[in-house]
Amino acid sequence: MIPRYSRPDMVAIWEPATKYRIWYEIEAHACDAMAKLGVIPQANADAVWKAKDVTFDVARIDEIEAVTKHDVIAFLTHLAEHIGSEDARFVHQGMTSSDVLDTTLNVQLTRAADLLLDGMDRVLAALKARAMEHKDTVRIGRSHGIHAEPTTMGLTFARFYAEMDRGRRRLVAAREEIATGAISGAVGTFANIDPAVEEHVCAQMGLTPEPISTQVIPRDRHAMFFATLGVIASSIENIATEVRHMQRTEVLEAEEFFSKGQKGSSAMPHKRNPVLTENLTGLARLVRMSVVPALENVTLWHERDISHSSVERAIGPDTTVTLDFALHRLAGLIEKLVIYPQNMLDNMNKFRGLVMSQRVLLALTQAGTSREDAYRLVQRNAMKVWEEGKDFQTELLADSEVTAVLSEDEIREKFDLGYHTKHVDTIFARVFG
Amino acid sequence: MIPRYSRPDMVAIWEPATKYRIWYEIEAHACDAMAKLGVIPQANADAVWKAKDVTFDVARIDEIEAVTKHDVIAFLTHLAEHIGSEDARFVHQGMTSSDVLDTTLNVQLTRAADLLLDGMDRVLAALKARAMEHKDTVRIGRSHGIHAEPTTMGLTFARFYAEMDRGRRRLVAAREEIATGAISGAVGTFANIDPAVEEHVCAQMGLTPEPISTQVIPRDRHAMFFATLGVIASSIENIATEVRHMQRTEVLEAEEFFSKGQKGSSAMPHKRNPVLTENLTGLARLVRMSVVPALENVTLWHERDISHSSVERAIGPDTTVTLDFALHRLAGLIEKLVIYPQNMLDNMNKFRGLVMSQRVLLALTQAGTSREDAYRLVQRNAMKVWEEGKDFQTELLADSEVTAVLSEDEIREKFDLGYHTKHVDTIFARVFG
Amino acid sequence: MIPRYSRPDMVAIWEPATKYRIWYEIEAHACDAMAKLGVIPQANADAVWKAKDVTFDVARIDEIEAVTKHDVIAFLTHLAEHIGSEDARFVHQGMTSSDVLDTTLNVQLTRAADLLLDGMDRVLAALKARAMEHKDTVRIGRSHGIHAEPTTMGLTFARFYAEMDRGRRRLVAAREEIATGAISGAVGTFANIDPAVEEHVCAQMGLTPEPISTQVIPRDRHAMFFATLGVIASSIENIATEVRHMQRTEVLEAEEFFSKGQKGSSAMPHKRNPVLTENLTGLARLVRMSVVPALENVTLWHERDISHSSVERAIGPDTTVTLDFALHRLAGLIEKLVIYPQNMLDNMNKFRGLVMSQRVLLALTQAGTSREDAYRLVQRNAMKVWEEGKDFQTELLADSEVTAVLSEDEIREKFDLGYHTKHVDTIFARVFG
Amino acid sequence: MIPRYSRPDMVAIWEPATKYRIWYEIEAHACDAMAKLGVIPQANADAVWKAKDVTFDVARIDEIEAVTKHDVIAFLTHLAEHIGSEDARFVHQGMTSSDVLDTTLNVQLTRAADLLLDGMDRVLAALKARAMEHKDTVRIGRSHGIHAEPTTMGLTFARFYAEMDRGRRRLVAAREEIATGAISGAVGTFANIDPAVEEHVCAQMGLTPEPISTQVIPRDRHAMFFATLGVIASSIENIATEVRHMQRTEVLEAEEFFSKGQKGSSAMPHKRNPVLTENLTGLARLVRMSVVPALENVTLWHERDISHSSVERAIGPDTTVTLDFALHRLAGLIEKLVIYPQNMLDNMNKFRGLVMSQRVLLALTQAGTSREDAYRLVQRNAMKVWEEGKDFQTELLADSEVTAVLSEDEIREKFDLGYHTKHVDTIFARVFG
Repeated sequence: MIPRYSRPDMVAIWEPATKYRIWYEIEAHACDAMAKLGVIPQANADAVWKAKDVTFDVARIDEIEAVTKHDVIAFLTHLAEHIGSEDARFVHQGMTSSDVLDTTLNVQLTRAADLLLDGMDRVLAALKARAMEHKDTVRIGRSHGIHAEPTTMGLTFARFYAEMDRGRRRLVAAREEIATGAISGAVGTFANIDPAVEEHVCAQMGLTPEPISTQVIPRDRHAMFFATLGVIASSIENIATEVRHMQRTEVLEAEEFFSKGQKGSSAMPHKRNPVLTENLTGLARLVRMSVVPALENVTLWHERDISHSSVERAIGPDTTVTLDFALHRLAGLIEKLVIYPQNMLDNMNKFRGLVMSQRVLLALTQAGTSREDAYRLVQRNAMKVWEEGKDFQTELLADSEVTAVLSEDEIREKFDLGYHTKHVDTIFARVFG
Repeated sequence: MIPRYSRPDMVAIWEPATKYRIWYEIEAHACDAMAKLGVIPQANADAVWKAKDVTFDVARIDEIEAVTKHDVIAFLTHLAEHIGSEDARFVHQGMTSSDVLDTTLNVQLTRAADLLLDGMDRVLAALKARAMEHKDTVRIGRSHGIHAEPTTMGLTFARFYAEMDRGRRRLVAAREEIATGAISGAVGTFANIDPAVEEHVCAQMGLTPEPISTQVIPRDRHAMFFATLGVIASSIENIATEVRHMQRTEVLEAEEFFSKGQKGSSAMPHKRNPVLTENLTGLARLVRMSVVPALENVTLWHERDISHSSVERAIGPDTTVTLDFALHRLAGLIEKLVIYPQNMLDNMNKFRGLVMSQRVLLALTQAGTSREDAYRLVQRNAMKVWEEGKDFQTELLADSEVTAVLSEDEIREKFDLGYHTKHVDTIFARVFG
Repeated sequence: MIPRYSRPDMVAIWEPATKYRIWYEIEAHACDAMAKLGVIPQANADAVWKAKDVTFDVARIDEIEAVTKHDVIAFLTHLAEHIGSEDARFVHQGMTSSDVLDTTLNVQLTRAADLLLDGMDRVLAALKARAMEHKDTVRIGRSHGIHAEPTTMGLTFARFYAEMDRGRRRLVAAREEIATGAISGAVGTFANIDPAVEEHVCAQMGLTPEPISTQVIPRDRHAMFFATLGVIASSIENIATEVRHMQRTEVLEAEEFFSKGQKGSSAMPHKRNPVLTENLTGLARLVRMSVVPALENVTLWHERDISHSSVERAIGPDTTVTLDFALHRLAGLIEKLVIYPQNMLDNMNKFRGLVMSQRVLLALTQAGTSREDAYRLVQRNAMKVWEEGKDFQTELLADSEVTAVLSEDEIREKFDLGYHTKHVDTIFARVFG
Repeated sequence: MIPRYSRPDMVAIWEPATKYRIWYEIEAHACDAMAKLGVIPQANADAVWKAKDVTFDVARIDEIEAVTKHDVIAFLTHLAEHIGSEDARFVHQGMTSSDVLDTTLNVQLTRAADLLLDGMDRVLAALKARAMEHKDTVRIGRSHGIHAEPTTMGLTFARFYAEMDRGRRRLVAAREEIATGAISGAVGTFANIDPAVEEHVCAQMGLTPEPISTQVIPRDRHAMFFATLGVIASSIENIATEVRHMQRTEVLEAEEFFSKGQKGSSAMPHKRNPVLTENLTGLARLVRMSVVPALENVTLWHERDISHSSVERAIGPDTTVTLDFALHRLAGLIEKLVIYPQNMLDNMNKFRGLVMSQRVLLALTQAGTSREDAYRLVQRNAMKVWEEGKDFQTELLADSEVTAVLSEDEIREKFDLGYHTKHVDTIFARVFG
């Protein structure tokens, strides 16, 4: 987790204080359930809630852990300092550390997913607004980096919206994947604890009981979660790459917003670097790099080994914090992205109508010219444009062999941009409903 | 794609003949739609179906492609050889190659997903059957490879069932991700083709129209698809690893089925190697290795570049063929896996009751012994077991300090395996309903 | 392995016939060594060489393997068909299959490395030739896709040369990593075979004896090999990306060679797509995807498990064939890359001198103007260029506040391109010696 | 970077204070070189060294950066606060931020590599000592987790030594890869700074001048560096996995050292978990996960984009800190690993001589028995061992058909462990020289 690529809300989820708070809640809810089952006295269960408003002292717990060498025991010892050892003695009864740790991890991941969903909503809102704004802003579509046919900037935003919207749905599914808890004991048999405790704790913590666990919650869930974040990160890179291309000196169809006060820009006004989108490209790699270790974590020996743990200590916070930051950076970027419609037109016209050559070719054929002749006619005029810098439409209108087949109106019509944008509304309806 | 790790059904999906058949269907359905729109004559559309029962000549198409250097044109030329160039002239009108290629890829991936779902169903059926069979077959649960508490072999199968069942649901979602088609033209604007054509073709091919495409269908869909296969592969490795552990000489709780006639086994009867599950471990890596390039494929320049194509030519067939093979190998393995319940008991009793020490400790404490004293009592008897090979229960029954607190019945009860299996039915109900 | 991305020489290394030939040589050399040690009769060793010129019948071996279910035994049986069972009976004595298989794999990888080195040499030669050709061809250097300061096309080629040359040295080291053989028996103790046999076979096959093996050659060697190929692939992508950028419509500083006859180009002369470099981008991903499974292959259980094998069956041929093809595609691309020096100048001058603003700023400061004043002077003239399309040098020369500090000659000197290229020879000497 | 998986020495390399110290040294040495070239006054260069013993105030630099939004400028401003703005004005002249940042990164990586080499030396020393100690400690070799032939624990340590020694040599090469510096200006042309400055600074900082750079040092170097760390991490996992297997309850041939005072062990003496090696398995994944983003970082647009930067901010420290910690954890583990030779013998004898069946088979054949008969004889005795728990040697000696061919001495000789260990010295000489 790199401070400069972090937002406080997501960081907070992964702070020790948050973790201890979740541990406390799990233990307290478990006591409630056990009391209800008659396994422990109701009074002791009630007493645990005395610590309801306590902010646990992380330094003190660390101090105890330095002695006990066991994090959960250290916490329980500290808890006893708040509620008294007599009342604390039934806390954690029949449970194993993993019951608390794994359920806590999933609470944290679930909360992280909620924040990520907020981030995606902000990105979606921005994309939608900009799509509407530039629905009819014509620009050249490019395949292989080469001019192809006209499209609109609104369609570009709209397709990113559709992609992010798929990402959002994937994230909802991924959140569901890891929204489970387990209080099932040393090897998952509930030998020492009733399944009812698990049910109560999960309900209280906003989770579903894991149908079958071992000492741990199965890690295919987490693999799916991180794989999904990796896909979303790749979509961020996709958008970032489009902006980076649009901002390059020779294209300049858009620029990342550059505040008036930002130093150094005015003496070299062309030197506004798309550093936010380049950064997003790197952040996407950082998010993606958690996918492989998460997949490798799925295989555990028998009822558990602890190889997954160090991996999750790293990728749990790092990946969610980075993606959260990236989503908000992306949203801000889109919200303020400066679009240059005139440059779009200038770029499209760079080859003075040549992008329309396919339409002319088709028109000639449809009007009865043989494919070979049509090709020859288009080619000879195209070459004048390409080699001598002439205007394609003008050349066609001056070519008697062409005008013998197509009228001036018919030729002019081929250069009508409306031809290319006539289905934009249809597509928008598909995307935005 | 390695022949020995391939099943014919999946291989067939990726054969050139299949591809050309799908191309043909897309073109023919597109003609139908265009005829209905009045864009091309009905008669020509009808004529295309004359080739309905043709098996296209792959070698001939290759021959043409060697000249035209363009695969779709080569196919269309060959199609014309079947239906006549006059009737063929409207085929593909207004479409671009990617319309055909991308829609075809998704048809293939969708069919591949269907085969994979069949494979998962077979795995699930095998796991369920074996879970039921061994619901009450007690074995020791292990954390960190070390004996922990008893569980049952049925629970092991059941948790793999639950994991594969999650995998199945993920695969259904992944199939939906790539079950889209696009007939939207050079940059996705439908400039030269009506959206109705796309709708008709997709409906006929069992796909949904891509709401917004560029020249290509967006690759976040494919990334999600391959990421999902990677998670499923990891679950296969998880199961395979369990079997590999069970079969190792010192454990021998299970063995891959070894047919009577298989050579070399009888002179070294202990030397039956778990080669199928080791192989599955390797195959899982092969499936997973498609995840990163699929994620890298998401970013395309503007309305498309072709960097994704070579990647998909490889991972499309390789990954689905390998996973398909792995699923059926896994299913066969589970179906015939030889289980050794007696060895399970022998292994569990290797430490003569020591795995029950925790229960005894708890019982002493609950009976009023201080934590320190209880620990001392358990420890001194445990040490006799560990160091002198005594039996734990016998030692406890002979320790007057212990019997002063716990009766013989109470001590014996702590060694009752039923304590550990009492919730197996509950868990089975959760998993199998 | 995808036929269209394959070269026959590399494919041949991985063909069954080649494999059997290597098996034969290993067995024959082993017999020689055993005869010399007196372990088997010399006559029998000599007899094995009777098959020296035999082309083994792959179909026949497959036929036998279908019965024996063991590839090495099938081969030995077939060998006996050639040299007679009497003479064949000492072949393979004291060896295990892995001795043959692992040594063969490394022979194949070593040969593959040699072919790859040839490919890199071709790439290096091409890069060097083009670097020399365009040593002084000025173009604008870009950071973040934005014009920065002038550089030359020769420097671009030279840095790719230096990168590929590092790659070559890495590949030499990687080749050495896998140029080992092992004939050490079931668990690597030489219990049934003398180490002298290993030494002789390795010497004959161009390998070094593995200092210590188990049943297999340690897989960290192969991991390092494939990791190195992954780095080289990334360098290919780096070069490919530069070309893709150079070819995009708005930049057009270079184009992949497009033969006169290639169809479709003349009607849309701007539509020459950089498909080779886009393809190289995808191929780089395919090569890289072997890195992770190769790393995962390092961990084997005890003296070997066979999880690595299926992975290597795939990535051994696929990765080397793909990289080999990519290197030659890259070399051909560079050799024929069409460079447009005039477009380079036009692009550089797009902002009429603004890229020189930093030098002017510095000159003003050095001439005594305060930093603030210098900035203000540069800025006001830069803005005229940016907003009104004026020429920077002209504006500066017309600004009396500027000319009060800098003479016309001093100002003009700031626009001298020689300033930026004065160390090109120094850099070339560093790179090319 | 996770505190619990960190060693202070490696963490220190990546602290802001260290970074600023390196920046300072680079700037000061650059001033020296520029003074020598006559570009700046010697007095100013000398003055920079006034800050030689200053510990830069990180908080103060952060404060300035909050205003300037530029880290290098913030540092230079702070430096001026120490040496006076008059003397500071020539600092950084003609340089770009990347000159400082990239050279600094490589200084840090080089130092990190040195620490890692120390860690590897400690691992190597531990492996060598344990190899010598257990050179002749016989244990069963296992392929596929199944008993094969005897080997020794010393050979196990020796092969890990050889693997780590290869890793060390790879790391030396990787260190050399990133031990370069660059002071070459905005696009690498030395337009504003003499190459002599680069040479001087690099020599002083222990680096080699990068032969050709752009704005940045090429990232194939860093890719190779991180790929190498990934291979070493995989070797750590390989060793860790061996220990995890050895410690599992049914095998128990070794245990991670467990201090007397460590709580909870005595009541369940069998429950000593191999948590260090499981942790190493996870840490290996964390180290490896940097490989893919490092490979993706190689491709930069034109003379640089900044997408690599965020990746390196994370993997630079995280990967080196984690690997450093893992190496020392591994070394400590090996140093203190508790080996159980008696258990090794017990395990080997679990099948009462069956592992020798291959030798008996061979002896019978060599004594003239037909292969079929020999097989039948071995098989019928092996089956008694396997099914009835008899001793293999005893059965053979009691089988008159066997003793008709082999004398008692010849039979007994086949069970001599010395047969399997006779080449241990040869192998040790190869490994340890």
